[in-house]
Amino acid sequence: MMKVVFHLDVDEEKRLSMALGNISNLLKVVPAKNAAVSLVANGSAVRLFIRENASDSSSRIEALSGQGVRFFICNNSLTNFKIDPKALVKGCEITKAGILELIERQADGCAYVKP
Amino acid sequence: MMKVVFHLDVDEEKRLSMALGNISNLLKVVPAKNAAVSLVANGSAVRLFIRENASDSSSRIEALSGQGVRFFICNNSLTNFKIDPKALVKGCEITKAGILELIERQADGCAYVKP
Amino acid sequence: MMKVVFHLDVDEEKRLSMALGNISNLLKVVPAKNAAVSLVANGSAVRLFIRENASDSSSRIEALSGQGVRFFICNNSLTNFKIDPKALVKGCEITKAGILELIERQADGCAYVKP
Repeated sequence: MMKVVFHLDVDEEKRLSMALGNISNLLKVVPAKNAAVSLVANGSAVRLFIRENASDSSSRIEALSGQGVRFFICNNSLTNFKIDPKALVKGCEITKAGILELIERQADGCAYVKP
Repeated sequence: MMKVVFHLDVDEEKRLSMALGNISNLLKVVPAKNAAVSLVANGSAVRLFIRENASDSSSRIEALSGQGVRFFICNNSLTNFKIDPKALVKGCEITKAGILELIERQADGCAYVKP
Repeated sequence: MMKVVFHLDVDEEKRLSMALGNISNLLKVVPAKNAAVSLVANGSAVRLFIRENASDSSSRIEALSGQGVRFFICNNSLTNFKIDPKALVKGCEITKAGILELIERQADGCAYVKP
């Protein structure tokens, strides 16, 4: 099983785009059933997942989500930026503390990649 | 035991602030006695830990240090930037080579987080 | 054995320079025979390894390569940027998918460092 967690913490569209491209490329060489791929967004990066901001990315996120990729959005950061979880792109999941999610996934054997 | 090492290598106050916020949030959800949290600063990031530059951060660093968080400053980088270790914020420790510290901590089971 | 993989994904000369400096410093404190050090470049960072762009870095890369450091360049990214692998600095190796290389190396016990 190939296990990896991607980390985004700044509100830069090109980094999200790079991460989504990385994940797509990965799933071309490793079958989705042999891959546990997730992305954790915290800090200002949570803004990238607001549905109305994510015009270009939202369909890519939904498609990857349909292939089993999990998108975790940090609830601490949503609170800081006063973002309603209901405003997020479909397929996103809320995690209480993004950093803890990153730590627990690595402890569980995931590689870490910071685009 | 939750184990993590944070990495800073550029002289950007907002990244230090993000790292300190990450650590504070983490210690709200995991008791300090169950957490081994450290931060390694190398490259130009070592400047952020000079006492007189760190007006806003130094009290946060000292408070976290009091909770058991360890701050490792790369001695190679201090030498490059001609910084006297005595000029650093209280609570900082010197490590011979920051990158080696990062590698050894990960080999010892720490997750890696780059804010 | 000290095992580490460095990751570069943006076309910023100063980050490459920092990574090469990190690696050089590391090999001063750990004998090359006890170290498995590699660097993976993907995204626009692959441009940094074009021979004619890499005037300052190419001799450093070749010297480190001679000490056993491996430089992996992502083939997906070379294709995206229409770069001929023959144009790369001597000592570079091609990897099919840079992200997969990063994941497999971490799964094999390498620490991850993102300069």
